[in-house]
Amino acid sequence: MPYINVKLTPEGLTPQIKETLIADFTDILAKRLNKNPATTIVIIEEVETDNWGIGGHSVTRIREGN
Amino acid sequence: MPYINVKLTPEGLTPQIKETLIADFTDILAKRLNKNPATTIVIIEEVETDNWGIGGHSVTRIREGN
Amino acid sequence: MPYINVKLTPEGLTPQIKETLIADFTDILAKRLNKNPATTIVIIEEVETDNWGIGGHSVTRIREGN
Amino acid sequence: MPYINVKLTPEGLTPQIKETLIADFTDILAKRLNKNPATTIVIIEEVETDNWGIGGHSVTRIREGN
Amino acid sequence: MPYINVKLTPEGLTPQIKETLIADFTDILAKRLNKNPATTIVIIEEVETDNWGIGGHSVTRIREGN
Amino acid sequence: MPYINVKLTPEGLTPQIKETLIADFTDILAKRLNKNPATTIVIIEEVETDNWGIGGHSVTRIREGN
Repeated sequence: MPYINVKLTPEGLTPQIKETLIADFTDILAKRLNKNPATTIVIIEEVETDNWGIGGHSVTRIREGN
Repeated sequence: MPYINVKLTPEGLTPQIKETLIADFTDILAKRLNKNPATTIVIIEEVETDNWGIGGHSVTRIREGN
Repeated sequence: MPYINVKLTPEGLTPQIKETLIADFTDILAKRLNKNPATTIVIIEEVETDNWGIGGHSVTRIREGN
Repeated sequence: MPYINVKLTPEGLTPQIKETLIADFTDILAKRLNKNPATTIVIIEEVETDNWGIGGHSVTRIREGN
Repeated sequence: MPYINVKLTPEGLTPQIKETLIADFTDILAKRLNKNPATTIVIIEEVETDNWGIGGHSVTRIREGN
Repeated sequence: MPYINVKLTPEGLTPQIKETLIADFTDILAKRLNKNPATTIVIIEEVETDNWGIGGHSVTRIREGN
């Protein structure tokens, strides 16, 4: 029954990695809290670097500065 | 004043169906709780099947298995 | 598989009304998009009127003004 | 440490405006609550007008009616 | 029409500060994007320090360590 | 930089389990995607069983039926 929402910038998010993350997150809740995987939902949301801010700047700008 | 967020995989989500869902959800809160439709917000978020997990697998993989 | 999140101020949200809202929202997605109720999740979040703003004021203040 | 999620329809959301919004939101929490900008996250989500409902209609339809 | 969700730990969140944050966030979207305050929603969610993690630890534990 | 939001019903959510979940979720993103734990945020939201619906019923009612 749990619901997990993960927001990430898109780089590296291949279908295979997404499969792995879904399995990993579901397993944690099964192992730690005995939650039923059959009703555990994981939603991965990809957020462009222009739209993600930290430290008062977008990730786009932060990466340009590096 | 209510806020409703609906996350769905995209298949079948035509503009007409979205109009219908917006009307339906707004009507429920007006009918059940007398909420004012003028300030009821409905946001529909379409989540790709690679990004939606249930039962420890992505919906993409589950559908391939069927 | 759908996920519905409803945010509301708490007044009138009895257990019976919550049951009704859960049933109503689930039914809409079954009827309009043939979504399986067994994996449709509805989460109702109650937000205090101090914490809900519209028009630049909290609902607490708006109601005091009425 | 705060987390701010802003949902908007996409018109006018240039990279420069997004930078400005990220800075503005971060500054408010630093000024009002002394929150550390270094761990303040701002996520801007762009929602198409078909997917945003208010008053029981999509923003697409509302704008067509004007 | 915009929707802003702010998650914060509860310390310092008096009703007056919440009023101020609601006004500030609404003003930014009016000023930067000409968004109508009448339909701008701000929801402030207070998250206990046990339930907020950063750097792999809860804020409760991080503060104990200071 | 990632953001993880986990919604769960409250039973069993001791401070120690929450610490463990925060560490587990942060570790997964470090291991799978090389994400920096220092800016990985995990927020655990506890949802009462009256407010969580699945299969068209609240979890409260489902558990009463068992």
